[in-house]
Amino acid sequence: MLVEIITIGDEILIGQIVDTNSAWMGEQLNLVGIKVHQITSVSDNAEHIVKALDEAKSRVDIILITGGLGPTKDDITKHTLVTYFNTSLRFDEEVHQHVKALFARFGREVTGVNLKQAEVPENCTVIHNANGTAPGMWFEQNEKVFVSMPGVPYEMKKMMGAEILPRLKKKYSLPTIVHRTILTQGVGESFLSEIIAEWETSLEAEKIKLAYLPSPGMVRLRLSASGNDEIALRKSVEDKLEELNKLIPQHIYGYEKDTLEQIVGSLLKEKMQTLSLAESCSGGLIAHLVTSVPGSSAYFMGGVVSYSYESKTKMLGVTTETLEKFGAVSEEVVTQMALGAKKEFKTDWAVSASGIAGPDGGMEGKPVGTVWIAVAGPNGVKAKKFQFGGDRERNIAVTAITALNMLRKQLLAVE
Amino acid sequence: MLVEIITIGDEILIGQIVDTNSAWMGEQLNLVGIKVHQITSVSDNAEHIVKALDEAKSRVDIILITGGLGPTKDDITKHTLVTYFNTSLRFDEEVHQHVKALFARFGREVTGVNLKQAEVPENCTVIHNANGTAPGMWFEQNEKVFVSMPGVPYEMKKMMGAEILPRLKKKYSLPTIVHRTILTQGVGESFLSEIIAEWETSLEAEKIKLAYLPSPGMVRLRLSASGNDEIALRKSVEDKLEELNKLIPQHIYGYEKDTLEQIVGSLLKEKMQTLSLAESCSGGLIAHLVTSVPGSSAYFMGGVVSYSYESKTKMLGVTTETLEKFGAVSEEVVTQMALGAKKEFKTDWAVSASGIAGPDGGMEGKPVGTVWIAVAGPNGVKAKKFQFGGDRERNIAVTAITALNMLRKQLLAVE
Repeated sequence: MLVEIITIGDEILIGQIVDTNSAWMGEQLNLVGIKVHQITSVSDNAEHIVKALDEAKSRVDIILITGGLGPTKDDITKHTLVTYFNTSLRFDEEVHQHVKALFARFGREVTGVNLKQAEVPENCTVIHNANGTAPGMWFEQNEKVFVSMPGVPYEMKKMMGAEILPRLKKKYSLPTIVHRTILTQGVGESFLSEIIAEWETSLEAEKIKLAYLPSPGMVRLRLSASGNDEIALRKSVEDKLEELNKLIPQHIYGYEKDTLEQIVGSLLKEKMQTLSLAESCSGGLIAHLVTSVPGSSAYFMGGVVSYSYESKTKMLGVTTETLEKFGAVSEEVVTQMALGAKKEFKTDWAVSASGIAGPDGGMEGKPVGTVWIAVAGPNGVKAKKFQFGGDRERNIAVTAITALNMLRKQLLAVE
Repeated sequence: MLVEIITIGDEILIGQIVDTNSAWMGEQLNLVGIKVHQITSVSDNAEHIVKALDEAKSRVDIILITGGLGPTKDDITKHTLVTYFNTSLRFDEEVHQHVKALFARFGREVTGVNLKQAEVPENCTVIHNANGTAPGMWFEQNEKVFVSMPGVPYEMKKMMGAEILPRLKKKYSLPTIVHRTILTQGVGESFLSEIIAEWETSLEAEKIKLAYLPSPGMVRLRLSASGNDEIALRKSVEDKLEELNKLIPQHIYGYEKDTLEQIVGSLLKEKMQTLSLAESCSGGLIAHLVTSVPGSSAYFMGGVVSYSYESKTKMLGVTTETLEKFGAVSEEVVTQMALGAKKEFKTDWAVSASGIAGPDGGMEGKPVGTVWIAVAGPNGVKAKKFQFGGDRERNIAVTAITALNMLRKQLLAVE
């Protein structure tokens, strides 16, 4: 089963936004055994959209369209589809009620331009947009499926997951694809590939594919096998995963869509223990990650972002002598920061980080990218030094991830 | 002058990587007056590549190809182009010397597979790849230009900037395109479009295009005009921008690539004033944004993420009576939080936020999405209530952006 993704919007062509939707859709479709044959980005122009639709239907079975569904004048997808499928618009009361309900939640009334969102083509199946006002539209013509979705990522993703993928799975008999993703932290792609080279070669005999998916501070390893016998496929993938678990246990922190903040949160909940933070170079990112997990207030008491010497002494009890003798980026200071947070917030655990994120602030013996991280827990405090790179944004991100993984390891060690 | 960008690589179609190259190229081309008509992503498959080339040359003047130039077996762009242009490969000594020099820098010798990088099609102009081993290739056929570039972003960018854009500018007499982007916060796309409807209609007479580019909490408005008289174009766009500035001054926070954290940082630096934070529902995101700006330690002293009642009283001096009487999400509590941070961190300014991010925690009169934000400054404290949506991630993001914009407005009001 082949798909073409058509993204509509001048903003993509002039480079004002990066098309992240297509990559996400490609990944999701692959997971259910549908292959993306081509991605085509066209302008907000009816003639251009029609040409792209014509070309796409000559080469694929399913055409997924995103973008151009907003209520403003530059969004013309809906009217182009009405013409393309030789139909007309009707007013959909269900969509109208949904738009009304969404607006009511914000204490607003539906006005002219938004009322138009309830107008849908006569001959399409209307697809519910749980996160927005513009409904999706599902057309079928000569054995081909055309689906139009909003371009706003969180609206599109929800619609794909809840509505489009289930309908595609129901409509077509798809081959079984088994995927497992193994999440590693703290080891680079090339180093990892050397450690697991022999294991990687052994995958070929099982017709299992391996993909390296690196992101700052982590590498995801994805195993895929495709065929018809789901039980056999699943067994061969699980066997290989088990081998990998034995090969690099120290680098693996989770599987599939796990995140460190979720894992750490679950462990804390399970133990009924609490967490606080003392952040310097990570500037609040650890707190942001921890609190991005729904229900985190059950175990996260709070944190201090200490960007000055004074805040380190006043809010976290770091002594002036220690700061002067060892500098803010030192084992002694992160240790005191973690112990200070643990005491101030009265928590079982506290994590601290202090380093030089860059671009300035590097010094003799402490270049940009030098970071100290400490974890204080029921059995004392443990600090570790890291040397990251030269990029501020990346250093902040990698510090946060590394700190959460240090905490995870400590949580698992203390039972 | 119209361009089509063709990106080659299975990794794009299966969503393993996001195609950021095309957006960058689109932006660069626009700046020199070349319009990207379409972006097409195809697989590492000769037949597919040929089809894309044929279709592209039927609609545009210039075809820019990225990807598929690596030395490994799945990269077939070069051989496909050799067939497509009915030519053969020759060994290029200049490229060979360049590859050798690059390898020598890493103390390595050029081996078989990399030696192949020096093989180039007979009938193309070889383009120097300063940052890598695979040369670019410039073909001309029937008035059409085809350029093949590497897919590695930093190799492609260097090649585009140093070689391709100058050659395109020399070859064609290009129109001028003028863009201005206006950044608004706190007002939705549809409401904005109603407020500026008349102004938007007036753009037509000037042949200026308007695009709405929404993201959580903000809408960017992009004006574009194309023609030959740069001075006249620039004037007509600036005049319209000036009109908009007068129409919705309260919603505009910046232009082009400005961010609120940078604007707020610049204002604080200019005034030589300092900032602290007291975050509850935003969970550290405001601190993360503020500290993502290089040099922010000059004005940002720190913040408290207070996720518990106790941390609000202990670290920020919120009184237990106030918490009990009004609840954590109240004008009284955010006011005390902001004043507490201002005092504890001894700063000129402090921003606080407390709300119900969701998905749980909503209550009678305070549904999920209810957020109070306060800004304390030299002239006292100001608090405001907001009603955002039902999505936790989005509520956190919009709270942070809204808080920074409140601070910006206060910074501008107090001179």
